[in-house]
Amino acid sequence: MIGVAINGYGTIGRRVAYGVSVQDDMYVTGIVKNTPDYVTKQASRYYNIYVPDSDKKKEFEESGIKVKGTLKDLLAESDIVIDGTPEGSGEKNLKLYKEYGIKAILEGGERSDAAESSFNAYSNYADSMAKNYVRVVSCNTTALARTLTPIRDAFGIESASSTILRRATDPNDNKKGPINAIEPSMSYPSHHAGDLKTVMKDINIETTAVKVPTTLMHVHVINLELASQPGTQEVLNALSQKRRIILLNGGEKINSTAQVMDYARELSRNRSDLYEIAIWKESINIYKNRLHYIQAVHQESDVIPENIDAVRAMFGMEQNLSVNKTDASLDIKGVEY
Amino acid sequence: MIGVAINGYGTIGRRVAYGVSVQDDMYVTGIVKNTPDYVTKQASRYYNIYVPDSDKKKEFEESGIKVKGTLKDLLAESDIVIDGTPEGSGEKNLKLYKEYGIKAILEGGERSDAAESSFNAYSNYADSMAKNYVRVVSCNTTALARTLTPIRDAFGIESASSTILRRATDPNDNKKGPINAIEPSMSYPSHHAGDLKTVMKDINIETTAVKVPTTLMHVHVINLELASQPGTQEVLNALSQKRRIILLNGGEKINSTAQVMDYARELSRNRSDLYEIAIWKESINIYKNRLHYIQAVHQESDVIPENIDAVRAMFGMEQNLSVNKTDASLDIKGVEY
Repeated sequence: MIGVAINGYGTIGRRVAYGVSVQDDMYVTGIVKNTPDYVTKQASRYYNIYVPDSDKKKEFEESGIKVKGTLKDLLAESDIVIDGTPEGSGEKNLKLYKEYGIKAILEGGERSDAAESSFNAYSNYADSMAKNYVRVVSCNTTALARTLTPIRDAFGIESASSTILRRATDPNDNKKGPINAIEPSMSYPSHHAGDLKTVMKDINIETTAVKVPTTLMHVHVINLELASQPGTQEVLNALSQKRRIILLNGGEKINSTAQVMDYARELSRNRSDLYEIAIWKESINIYKNRLHYIQAVHQESDVIPENIDAVRAMFGMEQNLSVNKTDASLDIKGVEY
Repeated sequence: MIGVAINGYGTIGRRVAYGVSVQDDMYVTGIVKNTPDYVTKQASRYYNIYVPDSDKKKEFEESGIKVKGTLKDLLAESDIVIDGTPEGSGEKNLKLYKEYGIKAILEGGERSDAAESSFNAYSNYADSMAKNYVRVVSCNTTALARTLTPIRDAFGIESASSTILRRATDPNDNKKGPINAIEPSMSYPSHHAGDLKTVMKDINIETTAVKVPTTLMHVHVINLELASQPGTQEVLNALSQKRRIILLNGGEKINSTAQVMDYARELSRNRSDLYEIAIWKESINIYKNRLHYIQAVHQESDVIPENIDAVRAMFGMEQNLSVNKTDASLDIKGVEY
């Protein structure tokens, strides 16, 4: 059993903790939280709670939360740490992880050269085999890699272009915005294009990012120039081979992210999450070698299966074995609509 | 075992179906759906599917959904029906239910005199004992009855006033609004005041309703003139005696409905629902005999335990026994923060 420490228990950290807890070859040694808030109180029902430094102990214990030890104590008794601390902190924490001789996973907010490899289970699993320091790419990059990989493998991609409509903030945040504006990023291409190349080396892609006032999901409008001219059914077949992609049928009234996340609630999953990338079938349009489609991305959870697989890659398990185990444990079936 | 039919499987119907399915003295005989959409497809994993009329069968079966029969077939094999059809339809359907000699529960969108009694588990459970046609009051009225009852019982209420900040629409809807406006109701008092009197007969209350652009929860600002002058701790004690009320600690960063619903997700419940009415502790303020507090209401789910209790009242079970059973089955513990 691989002992997994979770440092940081925010949007990603808490979901990775859940994901690890339902595997049969790894377990959560403990989680590190910085404040004794309502999330920590709930977490203490399931996990051992650790604090960054011993001077935090008192504050937690005054809130009625039992503290098992400090981050260093936790690292000493774990085989790997998954770092879900705020953007940029993971790279700093890496020094400590190296000191403790422990493997570490960073998330997509960190610079790609902070780790030995960047990871996506479909596009470049093998790059992280037996590595010590791996970075799981962000939710948007994960989504692009996940659907572009089977398309590239089946038909070849000459060039790709995507408009990324980003949710303004996560559902549990009441501070950030915009709440009534559309905010284009002035960087072109947006950082997603470069980030995708860390897991799909030769992809020729440009991306544009625009923030919109919603918290539910990101949406990607994707246009590809293929190396061949497939029919719609061939494209559907290629996408259907991957369980972490689901095909939505707009005709069944699932025509906005409001319904996509409502569908997720109907699946009876933990936190009502949607691990899969959802592509609207009706949006798939082909003209000669040009393929167009639209996908929705649950930013809070699509990277969770990737983190689980990254752990297994780093301990030497082969790709298909890991992906199959992860999908079975999280009820990821590639449901087609 | 009481056989419960669910006619209509929208926001309330689907949650009532889940609630019934986790009881040990009742079960879901089947659900009636009008369209073979994505919700129906998921529901068919758990429940027998019925259609309103036999001419709908073909449409469902073409979508790959097995149909067990029609509404009439379902009524013939059930002991009670819970009507979750759109507002105003329940009263029309009641004729059919009477024809089939079956007990029926209507929801809060129906007129109060359509049923023999209106129901809230805390304020007037006994009024529905052994009745055949009962109406469970709406989410907002349920919330008011739930927190005003223990306050009235402990301290007496001379008069009550509430500003009801209503969510614009439910999370799974992408059509209604407002999405960028605040929309006061010009009816004064709003219908909630009269509705509350159907379950708290002598309450002296005025309500004002204002729609705001959010989908997560309603929020009630409540001002009471009490018959006595309790201290804050006495008010907290009175509220703490009811498990369907939880007290939130704003100091633990749970300071908006965004965090309240995030807290609900951390509870690992079905559909990430929050059955309890959440009162912010810090909002409880007392000046002489005037009590002020603010509560948040999960409009999709607070009436679910009430529907379960209404079934039991109609079959003659005593109040405490039913409330205890319902709360245990839905993990309602009256968590205090």
